[in-house]
Amino acid sequence: MRYQGLLQTYREHLPVNENTPLLTLHEGNTPLVHAENLSEELGLNLYFKYEGLNPTGSFKDRGMVMAVAKAMEEGSRTIMCASTGNTSAAAAAYAARAGLNCIVLIPNNNIALGKLAQAMIYGAKVIAINGNFDRALEIVREITAKHPITLVNSVNPFRIEGQKTAAFEVIEQLGQAPDVLAIPVGNAGNISAYWKGFKEYKEAGKANSLPRMVGFEAEGAMAIVKGEPILEPETVATAIRIGNPASWKTAVAAAEESGGQINYVTDEEILTAYRTIAAREGIFAEPASAASVAGVYKLKSEGYFKGGETVVCVLTGHGLKDPNIAIKTVATEPLVVEDSEEAVMAAIAQLEQQSV
Amino acid sequence: MRYQGLLQTYREHLPVNENTPLLTLHEGNTPLVHAENLSEELGLNLYFKYEGLNPTGSFKDRGMVMAVAKAMEEGSRTIMCASTGNTSAAAAAYAARAGLNCIVLIPNNNIALGKLAQAMIYGAKVIAINGNFDRALEIVREITAKHPITLVNSVNPFRIEGQKTAAFEVIEQLGQAPDVLAIPVGNAGNISAYWKGFKEYKEAGKANSLPRMVGFEAEGAMAIVKGEPILEPETVATAIRIGNPASWKTAVAAAEESGGQINYVTDEEILTAYRTIAAREGIFAEPASAASVAGVYKLKSEGYFKGGETVVCVLTGHGLKDPNIAIKTVATEPLVVEDSEEAVMAAIAQLEQQSV
Repeated sequence: MRYQGLLQTYREHLPVNENTPLLTLHEGNTPLVHAENLSEELGLNLYFKYEGLNPTGSFKDRGMVMAVAKAMEEGSRTIMCASTGNTSAAAAAYAARAGLNCIVLIPNNNIALGKLAQAMIYGAKVIAINGNFDRALEIVREITAKHPITLVNSVNPFRIEGQKTAAFEVIEQLGQAPDVLAIPVGNAGNISAYWKGFKEYKEAGKANSLPRMVGFEAEGAMAIVKGEPILEPETVATAIRIGNPASWKTAVAAAEESGGQINYVTDEEILTAYRTIAAREGIFAEPASAASVAGVYKLKSEGYFKGGETVVCVLTGHGLKDPNIAIKTVATEPLVVEDSEEAVMAAIAQLEQQSV
Repeated sequence: MRYQGLLQTYREHLPVNENTPLLTLHEGNTPLVHAENLSEELGLNLYFKYEGLNPTGSFKDRGMVMAVAKAMEEGSRTIMCASTGNTSAAAAAYAARAGLNCIVLIPNNNIALGKLAQAMIYGAKVIAINGNFDRALEIVREITAKHPITLVNSVNPFRIEGQKTAAFEVIEQLGQAPDVLAIPVGNAGNISAYWKGFKEYKEAGKANSLPRMVGFEAEGAMAIVKGEPILEPETVATAIRIGNPASWKTAVAAAEESGGQINYVTDEEILTAYRTIAAREGIFAEPASAASVAGVYKLKSEGYFKGGETVVCVLTGHGLKDPNIAIKTVATEPLVVEDSEEAVMAAIAQLEQQSV
């Protein structure tokens, strides 16, 4: 039987009615991978929820399919967002599928065409303004308030509704809720969505317990940890480089209600985790995703876990989303040798010695 | 219930015995997406088998999980391949997961670090030789014949065994075999594997019919169509830029036995299809993948199909695998305007006029 996508699969738990088109790119249904090697090292029962295998390569597809389906239901012909990253790619893909126009507003500084290329391939129209990101978002809010254009940034409430389905899947895949759910925190919508999903599935009788929610900001963008917005957030994990999270309050509530916490990790810890999950588990995730794993290492070193607890780390996006970081991380030229069996065998011996 | 990966799911149809480790990165189980907009345009019932959603971003994971599991079963500690692309990424990921060493041999010309970075992030050791690709493969064969190192290039027969599972999934997802299976042809292993899979599932009583297999080489690398190896193959679709396909004979047999054909498409047709599937269906696939869709357009224009036939196009890899092509394809700078609502609305109007 063909998987029918999130809106069909979870329609009873979503704002889907008879007029809502069952739009899909077959988002969701992502793997829950048992981290066998790291489980043994950490004395935990560790899993990765690998959201990089959504159609556009990030978890944003879950919220976007819901937001775009509701835009269609309302008769909208155009959607709009301010974004330079994963949100714009997801918006553009679902707009293409739905036959809607997609407008992406970005600040006119440091335009990284690589990051925008995905949205543009899906047909999004990109407009750069002489102003910063906050100003771009402000203009999107002004325009969408007055014109028949649907705002699909994370202030669109349907985004959280779609995103909560990831918690449903975790419960179904484990057969129960995990003890701990570890997740990167940028705009803080995703931790809010997971918590909502876990609570709803428990209320529906599909789980007996709830996880402790532990969220990790990047040190250079830790607004919630500091208790104040960061004016110039900076981190290698661009997908969580956000100084004033839109879902700040609900993220704090998720941590408090669940007996968890919002904590932070350094860029160095993020990059170490980024390399570790690739080299030890064969999973390539974008740097922001690694914040959840870096956070688990941090909490482990502080004696946070009881032995053998089941911990799910959310890996929010695919490593292919940020090829430049991968290149920088591995930046050693290959060893060059003559084209003979002997020369290659000698090179293998040399490389094996290096890695001891 | 958690999806357990290909070796567990299809163990009765694979060379899996009690000593074979059930290695997995949760490869397979990829979406079969109904191409709603293109189906209407072409008068077909068109689907995409979206193999870009495998863990490393390409269909190579299906064969590699089987090859690496058998290497483990045989007690091998090291795997080796000659590859600059998707094969090396898949080999490196499964080696990391399995705790094996992975050696990748490449020719020392035009080394694109971006393409190798994925394999290197997973921990592969890369060696460049002063010689071409064929020489690299030759050395890999010499070394693996003499030393306890397992060859995982496509001459490893377990690769085809793993790859055939994609045909099993297509039958399960459709409830039957399609009328036509359209697929890119480079090294020609994948068309051979699908055909093997379709035949085996029919023999097992899981389908009543078999599809016509239609494979498409790139014009600049059309060895099978021409009937002779191409010494210097050239195409924008790098994943099928192969002048002397390893599975030539089985590919021709698949086309003949099934009543299909091996045909070709131009780079221009490939890039048009590449843009079309992104902009009209919201699916981002690498250029080589688009050869299958380009081929369906070509056959449609020649009156090949009966109306309403069910056609499955295999999209072999994710568009994020080749970001440079995406950037080149969209290479228009964004429109830059003042940071006011009026300026942005004027820009939207201008862009909408352009796209009429």
